[in-house]
Amino acid sequence: MTKSSISLLQHQQPIIFTIANTVTSGKVADALSAIGASPIMSTAPEEAQQLVNISHAVVLNLGTPSKLLSHELELAAETANQTNTPLVLDPVACASTAFRLELARTLLGRYQFTVIRGNAGEIAALTNIAWHGHGIDAGSGNGDLIAIAKKCALEYGTTVVLSGRHDIITDGDQVLINRLSSRWLTVNVGSGDILSSFIGAFLGIGIQPTVAGLTACRLVTLAGVRAGKAATGIGSWQPHFLDELALVTDQDLLTEE
Amino acid sequence: MTKSSISLLQHQQPIIFTIANTVTSGKVADALSAIGASPIMSTAPEEAQQLVNISHAVVLNLGTPSKLLSHELELAAETANQTNTPLVLDPVACASTAFRLELARTLLGRYQFTVIRGNAGEIAALTNIAWHGHGIDAGSGNGDLIAIAKKCALEYGTTVVLSGRHDIITDGDQVLINRLSSRWLTVNVGSGDILSSFIGAFLGIGIQPTVAGLTACRLVTLAGVRAGKAATGIGSWQPHFLDELALVTDQDLLTEE
Amino acid sequence: MTKSSISLLQHQQPIIFTIANTVTSGKVADALSAIGASPIMSTAPEEAQQLVNISHAVVLNLGTPSKLLSHELELAAETANQTNTPLVLDPVACASTAFRLELARTLLGRYQFTVIRGNAGEIAALTNIAWHGHGIDAGSGNGDLIAIAKKCALEYGTTVVLSGRHDIITDGDQVLINRLSSRWLTVNVGSGDILSSFIGAFLGIGIQPTVAGLTACRLVTLAGVRAGKAATGIGSWQPHFLDELALVTDQDLLTEE
Repeated sequence: MTKSSISLLQHQQPIIFTIANTVTSGKVADALSAIGASPIMSTAPEEAQQLVNISHAVVLNLGTPSKLLSHELELAAETANQTNTPLVLDPVACASTAFRLELARTLLGRYQFTVIRGNAGEIAALTNIAWHGHGIDAGSGNGDLIAIAKKCALEYGTTVVLSGRHDIITDGDQVLINRLSSRWLTVNVGSGDILSSFIGAFLGIGIQPTVAGLTACRLVTLAGVRAGKAATGIGSWQPHFLDELALVTDQDLLTEE
Repeated sequence: MTKSSISLLQHQQPIIFTIANTVTSGKVADALSAIGASPIMSTAPEEAQQLVNISHAVVLNLGTPSKLLSHELELAAETANQTNTPLVLDPVACASTAFRLELARTLLGRYQFTVIRGNAGEIAALTNIAWHGHGIDAGSGNGDLIAIAKKCALEYGTTVVLSGRHDIITDGDQVLINRLSSRWLTVNVGSGDILSSFIGAFLGIGIQPTVAGLTACRLVTLAGVRAGKAATGIGSWQPHFLDELALVTDQDLLTEE
Repeated sequence: MTKSSISLLQHQQPIIFTIANTVTSGKVADALSAIGASPIMSTAPEEAQQLVNISHAVVLNLGTPSKLLSHELELAAETANQTNTPLVLDPVACASTAFRLELARTLLGRYQFTVIRGNAGEIAALTNIAWHGHGIDAGSGNGDLIAIAKKCALEYGTTVVLSGRHDIITDGDQVLINRLSSRWLTVNVGSGDILSSFIGAFLGIGIQPTVAGLTACRLVTLAGVRAGKAATGIGSWQPHFLDELALVTDQDLLTEE
């Protein structure tokens, strides 16, 4: 981790263009704003190129896909590649439907992604590894998670953040692990979407992919753990989590486990 | 009520496929997750059939309808009927526009719903009873609410949950009443949507329709009342409500009023 | 300000039809409900006319525009004009993309808006004044904000609410200023959308445009400041803000600064 990623982010206020899903877009926007980034979202293909041009990173979230949105996703990805803008894919529930899996694979086949962030079931699906998913949740399987993440990274020439009880970050060669975790992050709908957007935020200030992945994982899980200390349920955890996201310092990321 | 519906739900973690509205989808997903269910949402007709196939119940919410969504609603309802998957309709504001009322009636005419959940104005509209609605709110009328709910249940061969100050649950013959209520549930946008999704959750673990309706009503109102004790407004009530939803036990449902 | 706008609103419970964006629609609905208004939202052109007919004010928010939504926006604006229903435009991020700016200008060219509410960058863009925007945020510029707001008001024959550290309300002639502000309102995604919907709410009970604008600005900022006293971050500020919105009295609006 770099020593100053969080303070740099607060200073630069990178614009993060997220093609979001309709379920968690509000939470993602709030979380980005809490850490000092500037979120912008869109549902119109007509403005995808222009929004990429003013943004420091682009995050494509497949949580509520549609034909129309596919068109915007393609335009955003294409423009991001043309302009060397960091590009993150969050293939939400791609293990659950052929429509999502095909959309994710089409995007990965045509465009160069800087980072893919998914849970074990999603990353396994992208690499054709058998896995027992459970809706939007990770599900369970016997695969070696590090091997799955590495295979996915190598197959698509990208960095993979496989989030779960331990977060695995790999470019296919180097492997970084974040061992912090909070059960509330699993109960909270949208934790993964927030993590993906934060990876975009750190990429947007010039942090390299594996470090951006690790930094985002540590920021989210550290805030999650701290929020858990004051929470009596997922309802009270959520406001604490947003508060804690803004209070984590670069020093905390380096020292606390 | 069965003695173990809540613990059963936490154990089975049913996948609840909700075609949601864009205003309250985040709240519904959070609430389902809080009680141990696994929410999945979609806006693409292309994946409706596959999502029904992996789900334990399907909830169709008409809060922000559109032509495209209508297509997905039809495919989801058809597949639910083919696979004997419990199917819930939430005809949000169907008393307010012809588009919504026609959509609700078309769905009810073509597919067999396990439960319809609506407020007095919505249920009255489905059964052609005059009522003075007020936007998305219930409005007021002089009808006998139990008679209206029964008529609707008989007309569509389904179970009706008419929610309000007292919740009325009926299959056209048997009538169950939940007398718990909280004024905060009325102020909170999305309380009805959450209730409908919870009915889906209890149906999804095999509880029969009238009992699933009553259980969901008691869970939501009991959590609402408890949250109200600690709240100074709708803002502080909301996190308490999510917390309390997860704390209600089967014993509480049977004994507390 | 009139002496009784808040109590009048609570008594009349005006129906506010908002064509919202998918990111903040939940927050806007909650905030309207908190102050006693009745929100209704829609994504279907088929029901736009009927929804205007049952509503007391119409608020068009361009936060997540699309071709389909444009059609609904036009129908809603046309019907509002035909029925003399107050009409508010929130041109979110219209300075950021040609698609948004053209959409905003088309609407302003064809229909008579009662109020336009935007930040400095958005209002400057509508009046062709150079400004350095920053995504959805206001950005910075050297223009005289009062002059920009007046120019915009005169150009479109409307009242402009230019919100920022100081909120400027003008019909091109009279200028009202709200000097209350809270930094949390800037961090909170959706503060502007809420403000626009509240302007609609006060217009919906018959308050005249500049007064409706000032009343809404004072209500939002006063609640924001009060919530800030109890907050340790944006997460804890949000529930306090909703609570405080409902607690502000007409007396507070007149006396507190």
